[in-house]
Amino acid sequence: MHGAHSLVQTLADNGVEVCFVNPGTTESHLLDAFEQVKTIRPILGLFEAVCTGAADGYARMTGRPAATVMHHGAGLSYGIPNLHNAKRARSPVVNIVGDNTTAHLKFDPPLASDIEALARTVGWVRTCRSAADTGATAAAALAAARSYPAQIATIVLPADCAWDEGGVPARVAPPAARARPAADTVTAVGRVLASKEPTILYLGGEALTEKGLRLAGRIAKATGARVMANRVNPRTQRGAGRLIIERLPYQPAAALKMVGDARHMILIGARAPISFYAWPGQTRSQLYPEHCQVQVLADEAADSVAALEALASEVRATEACLPVDERRVPPLPSGELTLERLWQSLNHLMPEQSIISDEGISSSRMGGEWTMGAAPHDWLNLSGGAIGQGMTVATGAAVACPGRKVFSVQSDGAGVFAPQALWTQAREKLDVVTIIFANRSYKILQAEFKTAMGSDPGPRVKALLDLHNPHLDWVQLAQGFGVAATRATTAEEFNRQLAAAIQGSGPHLIEALI
Amino acid sequence: MHGAHSLVQTLADNGVEVCFVNPGTTESHLLDAFEQVKTIRPILGLFEAVCTGAADGYARMTGRPAATVMHHGAGLSYGIPNLHNAKRARSPVVNIVGDNTTAHLKFDPPLASDIEALARTVGWVRTCRSAADTGATAAAALAAARSYPAQIATIVLPADCAWDEGGVPARVAPPAARARPAADTVTAVGRVLASKEPTILYLGGEALTEKGLRLAGRIAKATGARVMANRVNPRTQRGAGRLIIERLPYQPAAALKMVGDARHMILIGARAPISFYAWPGQTRSQLYPEHCQVQVLADEAADSVAALEALASEVRATEACLPVDERRVPPLPSGELTLERLWQSLNHLMPEQSIISDEGISSSRMGGEWTMGAAPHDWLNLSGGAIGQGMTVATGAAVACPGRKVFSVQSDGAGVFAPQALWTQAREKLDVVTIIFANRSYKILQAEFKTAMGSDPGPRVKALLDLHNPHLDWVQLAQGFGVAATRATTAEEFNRQLAAAIQGSGPHLIEALI
Repeated sequence: MHGAHSLVQTLADNGVEVCFVNPGTTESHLLDAFEQVKTIRPILGLFEAVCTGAADGYARMTGRPAATVMHHGAGLSYGIPNLHNAKRARSPVVNIVGDNTTAHLKFDPPLASDIEALARTVGWVRTCRSAADTGATAAAALAAARSYPAQIATIVLPADCAWDEGGVPARVAPPAARARPAADTVTAVGRVLASKEPTILYLGGEALTEKGLRLAGRIAKATGARVMANRVNPRTQRGAGRLIIERLPYQPAAALKMVGDARHMILIGARAPISFYAWPGQTRSQLYPEHCQVQVLADEAADSVAALEALASEVRATEACLPVDERRVPPLPSGELTLERLWQSLNHLMPEQSIISDEGISSSRMGGEWTMGAAPHDWLNLSGGAIGQGMTVATGAAVACPGRKVFSVQSDGAGVFAPQALWTQAREKLDVVTIIFANRSYKILQAEFKTAMGSDPGPRVKALLDLHNPHLDWVQLAQGFGVAATRATTAEEFNRQLAAAIQGSGPHLIEALI
Repeated sequence: MHGAHSLVQTLADNGVEVCFVNPGTTESHLLDAFEQVKTIRPILGLFEAVCTGAADGYARMTGRPAATVMHHGAGLSYGIPNLHNAKRARSPVVNIVGDNTTAHLKFDPPLASDIEALARTVGWVRTCRSAADTGATAAAALAAARSYPAQIATIVLPADCAWDEGGVPARVAPPAARARPAADTVTAVGRVLASKEPTILYLGGEALTEKGLRLAGRIAKATGARVMANRVNPRTQRGAGRLIIERLPYQPAAALKMVGDARHMILIGARAPISFYAWPGQTRSQLYPEHCQVQVLADEAADSVAALEALASEVRATEACLPVDERRVPPLPSGELTLERLWQSLNHLMPEQSIISDEGISSSRMGGEWTMGAAPHDWLNLSGGAIGQGMTVATGAAVACPGRKVFSVQSDGAGVFAPQALWTQAREKLDVVTIIFANRSYKILQAEFKTAMGSDPGPRVKALLDLHNPHLDWVQLAQGFGVAATRATTAEEFNRQLAAAIQGSGPHLIEALI
């Protein structure tokens, strides 16, 4: 058994089922391993960011790591932005990066670079020392990826370690149980809630799944606490029948206003909120006032659902909470295609258990409000701010959840960073409906420029924030990648195209001119 | 003057004329600086690899650095593969990477990452400490970029250093003269050549420009030495009237056969040749036999043209050398479109002083042979093996050399890593003719798999190396990015389309089905 075989065998034997692959010459034996190990499904990506983003999407929907294959440090570099997003989403991912033989590396051949240094910027890394070592390294990587909180784990595989015989598959110990809050922590939080001082339950991670939300709603009902979350979250279960939570706005002043006079903030699966950027004149990064006491019931490593269960029991919260969202089907919109109408149409048409991969940037800001009352669905946000996530996470989510419709709602400026994801969607016949918000500009940057500078941009800057010259033709781009595509210029056209895309199977893209 | 202004002013005052920009919100003040400093031309790229690759192409053609603007570590990561190529090409580049304010970074906001660690993998890096420090940091970066050999220099610009007042532009000392070989080194090399033992002049860097080649040819004529170079070089001047040099083949066995019984190898602007990869069973990385003595006349930092001048004088080489290439216009091909006919057509039609940006991978292997006798031109190879270079370097070369035709000869598998370069070509109306070698497969990987494994791939691997399902439609992709495009299926169609593209102005893409 060659080293690459034992590496892949170890991943397969321990539950890894999917590998997103962008191979190079150095990875021949890794490819051969997929011929030997049939229980891993290799899925080709034309560009590394597709592979890493898809692994993130897969992990968000399953809680389990997918693997990726990339070529040397250059390939890994293209994959890093979406690994950064995965790291912020606390998604487990195992990367395999091929490298030159150790002997050849001494001569500094053209592709040589510091792969470990690159990988370390997003998490755990180890280089295989021999073919006999690849199984153990894969096991260590998988254990690291599955630790709490989850990690990005990168295996560097020198070519000789891949092709030499003597590989030994290894076993991975099952992950330890997640930490639960100590009894006195639960008691202390219960005492805060009993004080009736204004308190916020601040949720993140699995606390934002249906089960967590139900518990949080009961606690809120019993104690009067508010339930709040970050503006962006790796995965939120929402829609009809689920607790409506308050989400912090993007602008710090608005966020602080929402938090208001809260005296306590209880963190449950979340870090304390901070603003995305700091802007000129901003004096505070934290999105809660100084007098607000932050307490950790469950950090990002802990079992936040178990923590909510313990707290619900402590405060005797048995009654269901209102307001939960109720199904209210808005009418299909008509007339000019505005952002609101577009979201309204999606709200009307999207089936139960849809998944929304959201990289709509400025066009998504009101998306949450405009999909109130929609059928139950999962919402996946841009977690780390690294552009190029949307279509790739949609791809991985669709691989993870066959039978569910995935809506990839996508700004045009950000969508053009990794449009190659469309090709993988076509190849794998994934049920992804991409909606391009074609405003043909860096709209968020126009707004940010004004905020930062206190004035409108001059002509040279304006030109740099405008994407009209030439405009991207998303119908042609999608078709170029093998995905059927249409363009909508009115609400009626959009309704019709969206309904047809939902009715059909396989990927479809709609360029919505807004 | 705010810090971003003094940074850009420093670059402009010291000769930087072009900046390839992919901005984010953090870079508002940098954008504003382009409004203040009109002598720098900001050129928008939709994706960071376009910016860094274009800066590389610009530097290869001018010898001078362009700047780039990227957004945080995530943006830099997308730019790293082409910075890796630029580093291998010894191209000077100055990157400006925006970051959070120092105070805000303490809270580990979503986009925070270790930018310095990322940048260090490709070269020099420094983080600005204050607005007053940005000019000095820019000056240091520019000096680092322009040192010998040239470097990739990255400036990290925290937002507060950009927006605070108190910026001070700085001056950069002119670069020191490049090193010339010591007299006794020249004498020693002269003695080797006088010995009449088989000797190779191994050229790199500026030794491959017209002037260097003329000198090398005279030395070869006077001494009987052979003139050789790497298979890939950042820039080679070739075509009619220029010295024909031997280029080492890709396969180590063939390369060693070409070097043959050489007893001496004289390095002039080049590193000693090593193989691109090591393959199973390969025992030697160096592409010269053990008995061959390697001597350095000029390393990559030295003035290789001056070194050739000194050596020519030492060996009294005054006579012009044969064989120089002679203009022989091949007939326009007809019939089925084969690789050879495609190159023959290019050879026939391309005007003098064309520039070829070559990321043809397997389709380019015979490109050199098939363009013998072409009009004088510059050839830019994939320097560091990081895929996604071709169209981006073509973009930068066209910016650097208005009035010259740029041919971007591009494999389809590699072209899809950074096709966004086409958009910048359309926006800037650059004279780039892209030729896609559409073989719809990872042909190089199919060959490499066989070499590495000693057998043909099985069905699962075959599927991973095939790009037919679905195939990329390059005509639609190009048009999606705003570039006129046509498809050629016969030699006649290709001839006609290429002639029209050369006749026209602005970018054009031809998808050649081979």
